[in-house]
Parts: sequence; C-alpha cells; structure tokens
Amino acid sequence: MFNEKLPKIWYGGDYNPEQWDKEVIHEDLRMFKLAGIDVATVNVFSWALIQPSEHVYHFDGLDAIMDNLASKGVSVCLATSTGAHPAWMAREFPDVTRVDSEGRKRKFGGRHNSCPNSPTYRKHVALLAGKIAERYKDHPALLMWHVSNEYGGYCYCENCAAAFRKWLQNRYGSLDKLNKVWYTAFWGHTFYDWEEIVPPNGLSEEWGNRTNFQSISLDYRRFQSESLLECYSLEYDELKKHTPNIPVTTNLMGFYPELNYFEWAKRMDVVSWDNYPSLDTPVSFTAMTHDLMRGLKGGQPFMLMEQTPSQQNWQAYNSLKRPGVMRLWSYQAVAHGADTVLFFQLRRSIGACEKYHGAVIEHVGHEHTRVFRECAELGRELQLLGDGLLDSRLESKAAVLYDWENRWGVELSSGPSVGLKYVDEVHKYYDALYQLNIQTDMIGIEEAFERYDLIIAPVLYMIKPGLADKIEAFVQRGGTFITTFFSGIVDENDIVTTGGYPGKLRPLLGIWSEEIDALYPDMHNQIVMKTEFGPLSGEYSCNVLCDLIHSEGAEVLAEYGSDFYQGMPVLTRNKFGAGEAWYVASSPEASFLQGLLAKICLDKGIKPLLVTPDGVEVTKRTKNDQSYTFLLNHNAAPATIHLPESEVEATDLLTGNILSGAIELAAKGVIILKQQRNE
Amino acid sequence: MFNEKLPKIWYGGDYNPEQWDKEVIHEDLRMFKLAGIDVATVNVFSWALIQPSEHVYHFDGLDAIMDNLASKGVSVCLATSTGAHPAWMAREFPDVTRVDSEGRKRKFGGRHNSCPNSPTYRKHVALLAGKIAERYKDHPALLMWHVSNEYGGYCYCENCAAAFRKWLQNRYGSLDKLNKVWYTAFWGHTFYDWEEIVPPNGLSEEWGNRTNFQSISLDYRRFQSESLLECYSLEYDELKKHTPNIPVTTNLMGFYPELNYFEWAKRMDVVSWDNYPSLDTPVSFTAMTHDLMRGLKGGQPFMLMEQTPSQQNWQAYNSLKRPGVMRLWSYQAVAHGADTVLFFQLRRSIGACEKYHGAVIEHVGHEHTRVFRECAELGRELQLLGDGLLDSRLESKAAVLYDWENRWGVELSSGPSVGLKYVDEVHKYYDALYQLNIQTDMIGIEEAFERYDLIIAPVLYMIKPGLADKIEAFVQRGGTFITTFFSGIVDENDIVTTGGYPGKLRPLLGIWSEEIDALYPDMHNQIVMKTEFGPLSGEYSCNVLCDLIHSEGAEVLAEYGSDFYQGMPVLTRNKFGAGEAWYVASSPEASFLQGLLAKICLDKGIKPLLVTPDGVEVTKRTKNDQSYTFLLNHNAAPATIHLPESEVEATDLLTGNILSGAIELAAKGVIILKQQRNE
Amino acid sequence: MFNEKLPKIWYGGDYNPEQWDKEVIHEDLRMFKLAGIDVATVNVFSWALIQPSEHVYHFDGLDAIMDNLASKGVSVCLATSTGAHPAWMAREFPDVTRVDSEGRKRKFGGRHNSCPNSPTYRKHVALLAGKIAERYKDHPALLMWHVSNEYGGYCYCENCAAAFRKWLQNRYGSLDKLNKVWYTAFWGHTFYDWEEIVPPNGLSEEWGNRTNFQSISLDYRRFQSESLLECYSLEYDELKKHTPNIPVTTNLMGFYPELNYFEWAKRMDVVSWDNYPSLDTPVSFTAMTHDLMRGLKGGQPFMLMEQTPSQQNWQAYNSLKRPGVMRLWSYQAVAHGADTVLFFQLRRSIGACEKYHGAVIEHVGHEHTRVFRECAELGRELQLLGDGLLDSRLESKAAVLYDWENRWGVELSSGPSVGLKYVDEVHKYYDALYQLNIQTDMIGIEEAFERYDLIIAPVLYMIKPGLADKIEAFVQRGGTFITTFFSGIVDENDIVTTGGYPGKLRPLLGIWSEEIDALYPDMHNQIVMKTEFGPLSGEYSCNVLCDLIHSEGAEVLAEYGSDFYQGMPVLTRNKFGAGEAWYVASSPEASFLQGLLAKICLDKGIKPLLVTPDGVEVTKRTKNDQSYTFLLNHNAAPATIHLPESEVEATDLLTGNILSGAIELAAKGVIILKQQRNE
Repeated sequence: MFNEKLPKIWYGGDYNPEQWDKEVIHEDLRMFKLAGIDVATVNVFSWALIQPSEHVYHFDGLDAIMDNLASKGVSVCLATSTGAHPAWMAREFPDVTRVDSEGRKRKFGGRHNSCPNSPTYRKHVALLAGKIAERYKDHPALLMWHVSNEYGGYCYCENCAAAFRKWLQNRYGSLDKLNKVWYTAFWGHTFYDWEEIVPPNGLSEEWGNRTNFQSISLDYRRFQSESLLECYSLEYDELKKHTPNIPVTTNLMGFYPELNYFEWAKRMDVVSWDNYPSLDTPVSFTAMTHDLMRGLKGGQPFMLMEQTPSQQNWQAYNSLKRPGVMRLWSYQAVAHGADTVLFFQLRRSIGACEKYHGAVIEHVGHEHTRVFRECAELGRELQLLGDGLLDSRLESKAAVLYDWENRWGVELSSGPSVGLKYVDEVHKYYDALYQLNIQTDMIGIEEAFERYDLIIAPVLYMIKPGLADKIEAFVQRGGTFITTFFSGIVDENDIVTTGGYPGKLRPLLGIWSEEIDALYPDMHNQIVMKTEFGPLSGEYSCNVLCDLIHSEGAEVLAEYGSDFYQGMPVLTRNKFGAGEAWYVASSPEASFLQGLLAKICLDKGIKPLLVTPDGVEVTKRTKNDQSYTFLLNHNAAPATIHLPESEVEATDLLTGNILSGAIELAAKGVIILKQQRNE
Repeated sequence: MFNEKLPKIWYGGDYNPEQWDKEVIHEDLRMFKLAGIDVATVNVFSWALIQPSEHVYHFDGLDAIMDNLASKGVSVCLATSTGAHPAWMAREFPDVTRVDSEGRKRKFGGRHNSCPNSPTYRKHVALLAGKIAERYKDHPALLMWHVSNEYGGYCYCENCAAAFRKWLQNRYGSLDKLNKVWYTAFWGHTFYDWEEIVPPNGLSEEWGNRTNFQSISLDYRRFQSESLLECYSLEYDELKKHTPNIPVTTNLMGFYPELNYFEWAKRMDVVSWDNYPSLDTPVSFTAMTHDLMRGLKGGQPFMLMEQTPSQQNWQAYNSLKRPGVMRLWSYQAVAHGADTVLFFQLRRSIGACEKYHGAVIEHVGHEHTRVFRECAELGRELQLLGDGLLDSRLESKAAVLYDWENRWGVELSSGPSVGLKYVDEVHKYYDALYQLNIQTDMIGIEEAFERYDLIIAPVLYMIKPGLADKIEAFVQRGGTFITTFFSGIVDENDIVTTGGYPGKLRPLLGIWSEEIDALYPDMHNQIVMKTEFGPLSGEYSCNVLCDLIHSEGAEVLAEYGSDFYQGMPVLTRNKFGAGEAWYVASSPEASFLQGLLAKICLDKGIKPLLVTPDGVEVTKRTKNDQSYTFLLNHNAAPATIHLPESEVEATDLLTGNILSGAIELAAKGVIILKQQRNE
Repeated sequence: MFNEKLPKIWYGGDYNPEQWDKEVIHEDLRMFKLAGIDVATVNVFSWALIQPSEHVYHFDGLDAIMDNLASKGVSVCLATSTGAHPAWMAREFPDVTRVDSEGRKRKFGGRHNSCPNSPTYRKHVALLAGKIAERYKDHPALLMWHVSNEYGGYCYCENCAAAFRKWLQNRYGSLDKLNKVWYTAFWGHTFYDWEEIVPPNGLSEEWGNRTNFQSISLDYRRFQSESLLECYSLEYDELKKHTPNIPVTTNLMGFYPELNYFEWAKRMDVVSWDNYPSLDTPVSFTAMTHDLMRGLKGGQPFMLMEQTPSQQNWQAYNSLKRPGVMRLWSYQAVAHGADTVLFFQLRRSIGACEKYHGAVIEHVGHEHTRVFRECAELGRELQLLGDGLLDSRLESKAAVLYDWENRWGVELSSGPSVGLKYVDEVHKYYDALYQLNIQTDMIGIEEAFERYDLIIAPVLYMIKPGLADKIEAFVQRGGTFITTFFSGIVDENDIVTTGGYPGKLRPLLGIWSEEIDALYPDMHNQIVMKTEFGPLSGEYSCNVLCDLIHSEGAEVLAEYGSDFYQGMPVLTRNKFGAGEAWYVASSPEASFLQGLLAKICLDKGIKPLLVTPDGVEVTKRTKNDQSYTFLLNHNAAPATIHLPESEVEATDLLTGNILSGAIELAAKGVIILKQQRNE
C-alpha cells in the first residue's frame, strides 16, 4: 500500500465537515495537526447535499472541504456519498427504497436503504460517481476513492424479483435444470414458468433465519451479494474511467454474513474494513478477522478504515476503551497487515444515532482529553515509523479456510443442530494456532493451496466443483489437511452428495460417517486418546455434533468415550500420497485443539514465531531483507518475553532501543522488533 | 384395521420416487424387500407434477410408480397430493394463497399454504381427488387413501372473512344473538351489519396468543377448523364416490392445537397420525397422545402414519434415536392401539429442508447401516406377528377427558395465569394413571361415559350444553368423577356462568369456589391431608392456581397449608347419587396425584395391569378370547418383572417362549405376552 | 376536590349496565347501597350503542341508566364513550383506524383504536360529546365528566403524516431550521420539501425501541401526544360549552410513556388516574406515582379513578389482593392526595378479555364474598370520614423532578447503555426519601422551584430553554440541587451541547464530565467516601454508567474505587450562591442514597414526618388548622410506632381513639391521626 503521495501509515478517519460551521472546522484542522492526522475520509453521506434534486448538482461545499484539507496537508479518502439516497429520490422514485424480508415496502429513512436493482439508484450512483471523479480527479488532496459505505442488506421488491429470475435464467439456462438443483420435486414446488418464481422471504419460504428451500435461499444470497457488487462496480468503473491510478475501495465489515467478500475483493484495488470489537470479543477473534481481510486479496496489505478511538454507540453496553487499548488494537491491525490506522470518527456528531460514538475530537471540542492525548501520541509514533512497514507481508505456512457460501449452507440448514455455528468452529481452530503463536492465513477456496503446509477447513459442509480435487492434490503433494464433522455433505446447490458422508472427501479422509448425532447444550461426549500424541493423552470433552464414523483405511487416534457410539473413532489420520488428511468428528474443547495442532505443526516443521506468556500476541511482517516482529501485550499487567539468542540485532522500532534476552512488555504495551532476516 | 389385502401390521412409510431416477428406485425396491416393507405412502406432494397447468393432468409418472410398487408386492397408501398447491396456481389464482395472522398476503412457498376458503383451491382439490380415485380405483397396489397432508394453519383473507360471516349467520341467525354471545357490549363492539365483522388477527383483536374477544377468537378457530375439514370432505366424497370400500384417512398430529380432531374423526374411516417425540418428551406423553388418537374414534385401532427411523430435522437439537428406541417406540404405538408402523420416510431426500430427517434408506444409499438394520429387524418381526393383533382393543375403566374447544377457551383466556397450560394439566393426571399401570382411555365429551368407572376432567373450563347433565348422570349411576380448579367457568361461547364457580358443576361437586389465586412460578402452597387417604398423608406441594373453595356438602379431605386461605379446602369429595365427584382445587405435585388415584382406583376396583419397575410400561390389547400384554422397558438397563401366578400360559409373541415368574426385560426391550383370557 | 353535590371521598367506580339485564341492575343498586357506593362511572364504551349509524343517536339506554342511578342516590361520573369507535365507522370511514408502528393499516378491533388525526374521528367525538353534554347537563346524577378512556397509542397513517408536516411547519417555520435541529446532515437526510418527510416508524427510521434519528422520533412523540390531546380538547370544549361548572377529567395511567401528562394536565380540571400495581411492585413506586399524579397540577388533590378490588386480568400472574390490601392501598392513594376511591369495576363482566378482572360484585353475584365485605367495610369508613380530608394538601420541602420529554430523549438514545432506565433512576432517589419518611413532591420542570428547599433531578439529560437558568436561580437563592451522571447533555431537540458535559449545568455543578463509561450488568465500581458524611463512610457499590468527572471548583466527597478512573470524583458538591449543587456520577446502591439524602435533609432542616419501622409509610395532609398523618403498615405483621410527645391531641380518624406514645398498627393496618396544627 505504499503510496508516493503519503508514504507512511495513513492516520486519520471519517470526517463530516458538512455538519459543522467554519469556526469548528478551523479548530478541527488545528487539532488534526496536533494529532498527526494526515488523512480524512469525507463525503460519505453527502448525496442529498450534492444532488438536491434530479438534475441539479452542487459541489461548492465539497470543493471547499477538499481545498481546506489540502491547504493543511490533509489528504483525502474521497467517498462517493452513495451510502444513503436522498429523501427527494425516495419520494419521486419509490423504486429506490427496499422491500424488506418481511415483505414490507420501506419508506425513506436510515442508510443501506437503496434497492440494488432499482433502475433509479443504479442510474444515479453511476452518474454521481462519474461527476465526482471528473471534478476531483486532479485535486491535490485526492488520495483514494471510497465507494459508498458498508454495503449490506437485502431487498425483496418486484425489481429484485425480476432481476433474480433473469439471474437464474443466466445461471441455469432452463427450468428443468433449475427444478433439479432447487430440488423442487420436494413439496410440489415444480416451476413451469420463470414468472412463478418469487424471492424467498417471510412471505414465501423463510421465517426468522430458517427456510423451506435451502437452494433457493442460497441462490438469493448469491444474487443479492452480486447485485450489490454490481452497484459497487458501476461506481468503480466510473471512477477508473477518470482516475485509472487512484486506488478504489469500499469499507467491508469482517465476517459480515450477507456478502461474499472474496468475490467483492476481486473488484477492489485494496481491501479496507471497519473493526468494532466489544469489551468481550476475544482478541484472537479480532486477529482472525484481520487475517481474513488480508486473505481476501491473497495477503496484500489492507486498510483499517474505521475503528473507534474509545466508545461505540450501538452495542448494548458501550464501555470505554481502557487506556492504551486503542493504541494496542491499532498496532494489532498493523501487525496483521494493515497499512493504515483510521478512525470513525474525527469529530463526534452532536445529533442522531451516532452522537455517543467516540471520536478523536469529543463533544467538549478541545484537545485536553484522554482520548485525544492517546490519539495524538499514536499519531506521533506513526509519523516516526515512516514507510518502513508499508507493503511488508505476513508469511504463513498454516491456513484456515473460510467460505461465505459454505457458511450460508450451514446456517440455512434445517438440522442437525441450532448449536452449530460455522464461524465459531472456524474460530476454535484459528484460536488454537493463535495461542501457539503459529502465524496463520485465513484463505478462501480459490487461494493457491500449494503456498501452505497445513490447511484447516472446519465444517467444510459444501464442496463446490473442483474443490475436492484441489484438496486431494494439496495432500498428495505432501500437505496436511484437517477437516471436521459435517463436512463434504453437499454440493454448491446444497444438494447432498449420496453414497456416504463425507461425500467427495471420503477417499481422501479414509472414513465413512454413518450418522450425525446432535447433542443438547448440556450434553457432552469424550475424546479418548488411544495413545499419546504429542501433548495429547487421556480424555477431552467434545459436544455440538458427533459424527459416527468408520475408518476405511484411516488410522484411529482417538475414540468416543461414552454413549452408544463409545469406541467409535473421533480422531483419524489418513495417509494420502505424500500427505495426511485428518478428521475431527466432533467439536472439542480448546486444550485438545491446541495439543493436536501443536503436534501436527511440530511434525510439519511449522514453528511458533516465539514463545510468549498467555495474552501476548506475536506476528511477523517481512519486507525485502527485514523482518518486523510485533509483540502485543493484551494483559492488564506487564509481561516478560525471552528473546531467543540471535546473531542479528533486534531494534524496537518504536523506541530505537536494541533488545535482547528477557525483555519487559508493559501492560497493553507494544514492541516492534526490527531485524535483518537471517533466512 | 384388518384388511384382507394386507392382513398384518402394515410396515413402510412415505416414499417420494418423484425425487429419484430409475436406478435408485430399483435399489429402493430391493431394499424394501430386505426390510420387510410392504406399504408405501406415495403422491403426497405431487400436485405440481400431476397438474402442470389449469387444464392439464399427467398421470404417467404416478402410473409407473404404482405399477412398480405393485410389481414388487408393495401396497400403496395413495395420497391425493393436495398438501401444497402448485406455483402456477399461486401466480394465476392468487386467492389460493393465505393471508397470515399478521394480515400479510402470502406469496408462493412452503406447504400448508392454501386458503381453505379459496374457490380455486376447493374446485381443484375436488377435481384432482376425483381424477385420482377414478384412475386408480382398481389398481392392485391401492390399499388406502391419504387425503392431503397434516392439515393445519389458519387463513385471514377476504374470502375467509366472507365465509366467516356466512358461518356466523348460520350459527347465530341474527346479529342480536351474535352481539349477545360475543358480548359486544364490552368495549362498544356492537355490530349492526354482518359486513362489519372482520377476522380476529394481528390487525384487529389479537396479538401474539392473546385476544380482546375470546368469543370471536374461539369462533374463528371453530370456523377455520371446519373450513379445513370441508376441504378434506370435498376430497373424501370424491374418493368414496369411486371407491366406497377403500378406507380414507388424513394424517393428524396428536395434540395439534388448531384443529378439533374429534370433529375430524367423524369424517375419517380410520385415524392416522404422525408421532415425533423428542429426546426429552416424557414417554407417558407419547402414550397419552396415542391414547388420544385411539380415542378419536371410540377406541378403534389407528394408524401410526409417520415416525422417524432415527433423527428429525426441525427440532433445535436433533439427536439420534438410540439403538432399540425406534423398535421400542414402534411397539409402544402398537401397544396403544396402532395397527400400522409407518415411517417418514423410506428414502432420505437430498435437497430442501427435510434432508436431515432420518429415513430407512439413508443418504449412503445401501442397507449396511445401523438404522436400516434396526428397521429390517423390526420388519421381520412384524411379518412374524401376522394378523393376530389386528383389531384387538384396549379395555379401560378409567378415562381422561380432553376437549379442543375447552383448550381454546383456556388458552385464549386473559388471566388468571399464563402458567396454566391445559395440556400439561391433562398430562399430570394421565401420567399418574400411567405410572400406576392403570389402562386409560383419552376421550372427548361426546364419548359414552357409561363405559367407564372413573372419568377425570382436568381444568374442565368450558361446559358445553348438556355436558353437566351428562356428567351428573354418570356419577348418579355410580361413576367417580374428578375435576380441578378453573372448571365449570364458562359456556360454549366463553361466557361466564354466573351464580358462583364451578357453575353448572357446582351441585355435583358440592362446593363453591369464591376466588382464584394465581401463584408466581416461584410460589407454592401445600395440600395438607386431614387424615390418611390410602397412601396419602401429610403435606404435598401445589401451585399454578389455587381455587379458594367452600364446601357445600362435600367432604373435605385436605386443606391449604399456608397463605391467607390456609385451612380452606383443597381436596373435596362429594357423594352424588351412587357415585362420587372430586375436586382438586390446585395443581399438585406428581406424588400426590399418584397417591390419590391409586386409592380411588383401588376403591373402585380398577386394577393395575401389572406391577412393574419404574420405566416399564404395560398395556393390554384383547381380541376375542386372547389378550396381549405389552411390556415396554424404557430404561437404559434391563428390568425384572414378576408375572403373577396364572392358570393360563403366557407366550412371548416375539420369541415364542413361554414365560412365567420373574422375567427379564432387556434395556429398551419389548415383550408381548399372549394369553388366553380367563375372564 | 370538595364538591357540594357529594361532599365526601367519592366511592364507587366503573359500571357497565349496558352489559346487564334489569334484574341484575336492580341487584347491583341494592348492593351499591350495602357497600356505601355513591359514584358510578358509566358510558365508557357505549359509542356503538348510542350512535348506531352516522346520523342516528339513541339515548334511551343511557337515560334509563342515569335515572336509575339518580333514583338510588348514586352520582355519575359520565364518560363520553369515545374510547373505542363503532364497527360501522371503521367500515364506512376507514380513516378512523390506525396505521401501527410496523406500518400496518389496522382493521376494526380493540380499543385505543382511533387515529387522532382522522377527520371522521375528530368530527364525531366533538359531535357526540356535545350531544351528551346538552342532554345531561342538568341531570341530577351528573357529578363529573370523564372524557374517553386511558388515551394512548400512536398512529402512523397518511393523515398523521400530513398533520405532522403541518405541525413541523408550525414549529420550525422553515426546512432550513428543521434540517438543522433534526441534524439531517447526518446520513444525508436533508429535506428539500415538506412532503418528503414521513413518520418515523418500522418502515423508516425506527426498529423496536430504537431510532436512527432521535430528533425526528422525539418530535413525533410530541406531535402524537399533542394530537391525542387535541382530540381530548375537542370534547372538553364541547362539554364546557354546556356545563362550565362541571369538572372534566380523563383517566391517566401514571408513568405511561407515550403522553406528556404535564401538558395534558393543563387542559384537565382535575387529574384522575388508574392504579394497577402488581404483587411485586414496590410500594414506594406506587407512592411515587401518586405523587406524580398529584404533581401534574401543582399539588391539587386528584382522583383515584380505577383500581381493582382484588385481581387483575392482564398481568402474567394475577394474584389476589391479600386481605386488607385493597383498603391499605386505597388509603395510600388518599394519603398521597386522592380525594376519591374508585374501582374498575363495580360488577365483573362475563365475556371478553376483562372477565377475570376483579370487581366489587363478583361473578357469583351476591354480597357474601370476601371482596365485597372488604369493599363494604371501606365504604362504611369513607362515609364516616365525611368531608374532613377533602382538599387537604401535602406540604413538601423536597421534590424530585420528572420530565416526559427528558424520558423520551434518554430512552431513544443510542448508547451509552441499554441498562439505563430513566424511571428506575428517578425511583431510586424517590425511594431513598420515602424510606426516610421525607414527604416529597414529584414535579415537572415548569413547577415553581422556590417552593422547595431540595430538588433532585436524576439523569436530567435534556436541558430545555430556560431550565438551566431556573435551576441556577433556585440554588442561588439557597436551594439544594442534586443531579446525576448523563445530565445536561442535550437541548430540547436532542442536540448535544458542546463544550463539555454537563453542558449548561457545568457552571452550577462546578465539574466537567470528560467521558462516560457503560458497565456490563455484572460489573460494578465503588463509591469511596473521602471522609465521613453523616451516616456515609467507607465504600458503596455503583453501576450502570460512570461519568469520569473533573472538579472545576466543586468539593469532592467521594471517589471511584477501581478501574482506570479510580480516584476520580464520583460525588461532588458545589457551593453556588447561597445554595449547593450536587453531582452523583454513577448509579449507587440504595444504602448510599439513603445516607446521602438523610444528611442533606438534616443539614437543610428537612425533617422526617416520623420515625417508623421498615414497611410503615407515613404522609401528612393538612387543611386549614388541621393535619392528618397517615400511618400505613405494608407489613404482614403488626408494627409499633412511637408518637413523639406533643401538646396537641392526636385522634385516630377511623376509630375516634385518642392516641399517644407507643401505638400498635395492625398488619396491613391504617391509622389517620388528626391533629391541630401547632406550627
């Protein structure tokens, strides 16, 4: 993400001068300087101001903002302002408002409020993006394009219904094919005319999070994700037409369920995202989300587009970020591949629903606050860091697979258990590697598997065309593959692969899963190790689902400890080509997974970056011949880390100190060790 | 249910060959034979396939299925396929889709989706049933008609509104009468024109499960239950026109709240139902439901139309049926009067929401599964059993009264307590008799009471015309009648009978209930016995509601133990004619009810079938001069049962062994003792 | 509330003879006499009976009722019957039915069902009120007017939308102004035409209890409260036209959230309200609500318009009022300023949803019930009391401020915590004074503050124009003012006052609140006293929110005990003019508040009325030279109270006994001590 216009970690965030008068803006600019802020994201929600009616555009306000910021040396991440349509548009062209999942036509209000298949909306977003691009293409402040804002939400209107039918015709060609993949022989759903198809929502197939027809609901998710992506692309293309060299992004939302971000990333120059953990979010979950965002474009550095300096407003209990936490979490983003540290927001709004969302400049309006001081201190540090870290990469031999369509499949499933949460199962494995300080990538199914020695695919329920072969090839060549219960069940249309679970993964895994037991929340089974395996021995607890499996060649390392399937395999390893394929037939407690992965990694030569006390996170970014090891102390107390003896000198990038031996890391403290690579 | 075409316990279940290709069907037929399957329910959801457009019918597919099954000796329970209307119909004739309880017009989707007062729907179900009956009336496979599927769900559309008004005119004749029974003087609801009446739903009188006008909501339930029954009857009549001798059924759902099955049973040749207990359903609840289904037609054997071989899909946690449980629960059905053992489903579907619902043939597709083996073993046993049990009856001297309209009244009531659940109170009494091995019938209010020595009517809230007299006559002749708190309160329109609770039951019970206290869930009172009564002595806990009663002649056997009504009666017995009428003024703990009913039964000469260890269920079916005693061990451990000395030999029907003295019953085991009756 | 037509505490309640035949009414009148009932509220829901069609009015039924009651000496609180519109009106003029918060057009049903901006509704309520007033203006039974019933509920229809736009034009004059106070620069909500504005509901800005735009939702609450008040006023004006001297009221509902009763009270001759505590409502909450109702019109006596003699129907668990409780709670109302004791209802209805709501005459229909006996005993007492208490006042030096618009602001807020409940925080302070027997007024912001020595304003979030000055003037003159965390934040449009919390209260309080931490429900902080303050010393628990404050001159009496703001002030006192302004920065446990207020009151010379055991409530009403001290024992056991030595004789008004020294108060007992005032 090195950018010659601002060759450092960008620092700043969302700024809404349209809410303020000149005096306030003047003060803001003064304080930006104090805080080392050099980037402002502007024009996020100004559509109604810029375009007060169908044929009229006013850019004076934005001109002034751009000039103002430029004059103070603040670069601009310029948004296209299409995150919420104007009120006049909703009134004059009702097709822009959505029909919700309960079948209700929406009126004007909120944001994320436009139908992605509204002809009015599509026409006007392209027009507007084009006009903005043309007007500001050469503006000195322009650094980056920010399309719309936090895309999300589905629509179920008649325009969407019509577009869905077209999308289906395109995808399936014929109703015969559609009837087959949608399995419409079930419950007499055969369609004889495309017009008979209606969107699946609360008026037809769905209720709450459930559906009668997984295939229909799955396709509607694909279709809506694509529809929104098309809206994004309309703007993207307009922007690129005028400024082919200015990077374009839109801010994503981590594990946001509704959009298939792997598809989105293909149309983005750089990934950016908004990080809003709450007080009780595990730090490893935040780490995993950063890694996923990095993984969307194959490891390319990403932008931390939003985080709060302190407080949020939309959680139930919006606790303050404790002293040092904002800095710590900012560096955590950088440690995982972010090349920017941006806030929502630079100045707190004083009206509407986000006025209790924290900001660099609080309602009090001056710089003499804890929050501002912490922001300014970080700003100073980031200036010192310069461009050293930019475009450095994280190198991982281990990867965890995550797939949105697989998630949709699992979440739409009726049975076997509401207790099965795909993201939680993914996190369990990620967390085990995280606790072991094994650097890990989060990857999609299109990633090049050969980059890795170990790939873990928890609950790989849906096997899309080619995926089984790709995994087999990976193992064949020597890779280690781990998957779990409820894997290999269906194809890309959520149609079960007959012939025995785990379907197309069965030869690779060397097992057959005959039945799947669902445990009540207060029930458990046990994983009983047959012999010691690394640190693993004795019994471990498991729950959620228990696959009742038979070995078909796989080595059985552990068996169930109770119930009528006591003695059946629960952990198996199958030699396949030069590699190994593991199956974990239930959802284990954390200590089991840490033990299992410690041993597997040890055997594969995948080493921890460092051994650290609990709560101290480690990552390593590398660039050219330098490595940058991040030590992040999430504890409320100081921690001591023992650096391994090394021939190369380790310098703390933030202090310039040369470190070795036992080093002390302050509570919530951060150290970035710069070293010459000796590999 | 003896049927000369298949004189044995029918074995098989729902089968959907329209979802499969020829090879699979070929395999299925092979495996049916292996499993001893001789009945398939087909054509349940094929409407869209058979009738692809308004004037076109295609029977080729169904012809092939019928011929195929016939050729392999599998008989058919032939459904009329009207459980879900085709998509084209919803599009061309929107009157077929429902308006839901929130006032929303539904689009195409799901099942149970047709408005019962849609002219289109009514016209087409009759046409279709007629065509099917005509076509297959002489088909060798045809064994039974299965109309539609699991009728249920209400509609609130304009057609229903109009039909409701007509139904009301018919029921009440005049608006004067309607205004009176609906009590419209309350809240100024007087109607001056029939057209002013709208269905009670979320847009008018109801919210959640509550209503402003119990009488209106009660009538709407009656009306919708009848509307759906009329749809059933349209099909029934068409079927009978062509095949007067083929029995007709539709599959019921036990205690399903929305339909008055006693009325439905009058229009059914045989009752059939779908039994889906979950892991934590009390076995006595399942037993009670079987008995209710048997009671719908006065004790006539019924069909177990659906049960899962192992797993369900729509529960929160779909646990597997443990080994032996499917067999045990199948025999439990037979033990309570079922003459068939049928599954949903014979082969698991691979798409849509029921793909994780268990089946005889699982997704793996072969017979080498635990589930298939258990099914085949049971199939073998049922073949051995032959026709011996068919049409045998259960003889009970005790009955528990259950009434759907009473339930509607209780559930619609605003006050005194949301903690009062009618079905739970019924189950408490049933369970006490069940634990005592007292064979019990579940009966409706139209049953001949003189068949019984003991009738228990928990929470008999609604006294319909003639019911009080009928109960009095029963007691007068020597019967024992037990009722509880919150009984005798209202008439058939939910209008309170003034003059003192329990209204028309007051003379019979010899008490006056002055007030009704509602206890919070964490509150209890005590039932303090005045003297020993059989096993009862000392104190017992009670809760939910406490009637504050005064004896008006009844003997007081127990008093409340605390609160300001300490010392008021809580258990009374009133001699009335040659019999006794008991009143239990609160909801007691189980041990109290078991003690009370043990003593009452002892005094009435109603004997337990056998004394068994906890968890071992006993029932007895009899036919001609034979009796069949079922011993069902619900425990996970073996149990020992001591057979009484008898002059007649007892043969285990399943093994042929002759048994006497202490016999061992395996965990989850079943024994059917065949004996010559010595009565 | 002295009224020469009935110079005593009115006794009676809602009566619906339209539900009964002549014989029953005859019995009712006999029993009213037995019970000392002299007032009946009639015609509450008779609109459909009186006006069977658009142009027809029938008053025969009401004539008969009025004459009947008059003939038996029962006076009438005559309702206008507009609480529910007729069915014919809903059918012929659909504008009378509402659109609900989910955007659904309602059909006929329920009550509170009329759109307040329906032209049909407005026309007809005025017409009807006028006709009734004209007809009965000279009727001997007429005592009081009762407009409609329990106004409430909002509408979101097109007529309301149009009226809202007009209301906004009137309030703001221009769209520029509206865009500013609604802060529409946020999320691009700028309006360019009044017609673009739609009501905020589930189709636009709101979901559940949350909103995107607090300012819009706040204005809609104001608008709807005013719209309903306009409907009331239409009737009020008609009634006054014909009977300028008959007092007019409508029955309020205590802390009912939707209507700003301070505005309503201005249009009411006397406040009346319906008191429905449940078994677990704290008695101090009921006391507070009575005080609020009294405070609506500056301390003027109010009417207890409804209470149940025993049971309610709409709670989850409708427990009986224990013996003595109905009497105790009736006197509690009088003790707090009620001059009437009225029930809902005199005779229990036998149909619809209130048939399990208690009544003086129960379903049994005779007088031989516990409930009737208690009612009759109270009726006898009230007759003995005569007119002595009428129009006596409660004198308080302490007041707690409550404001509906402030409540809306707090409840609509997005952040900082869903755990913050305005009414609960108000109650915490009220309860502390209540436990100390400090007589307290509940006042609105328009009250004359100079009447008080101590004013407590918990969570005074919204500072409307002039309020800060008014509070400053109060303190300047020597008053003591206490407020809390989350105060002084916004103006009347929910726009934050910049420059540092608590905004306009900052000079007065001498503090700056830099941040606001929200605690999870299981988290606590501590209030650590720096030195003893009266009974306060050591540590106390606090939670919900913690303001992180800095003293700007205020004395710090206590500091936080933990977390990163340990040592920051949590309790401050600022000398301001001749008075003091206190800030409590978090929500403390009860013992802290009792200690704090005990000491503050002691210092201010605000004395407890009496020292009593726990659970014994005391209030004092005074009139001319007499005082009436109410002693109310809420305990289930007797209590002993030690009267202070006094020169004036204390007579128990209910027994005539002269009391002094240690006196015994029965369980649930009441004593009213009449004394000559010696002040």
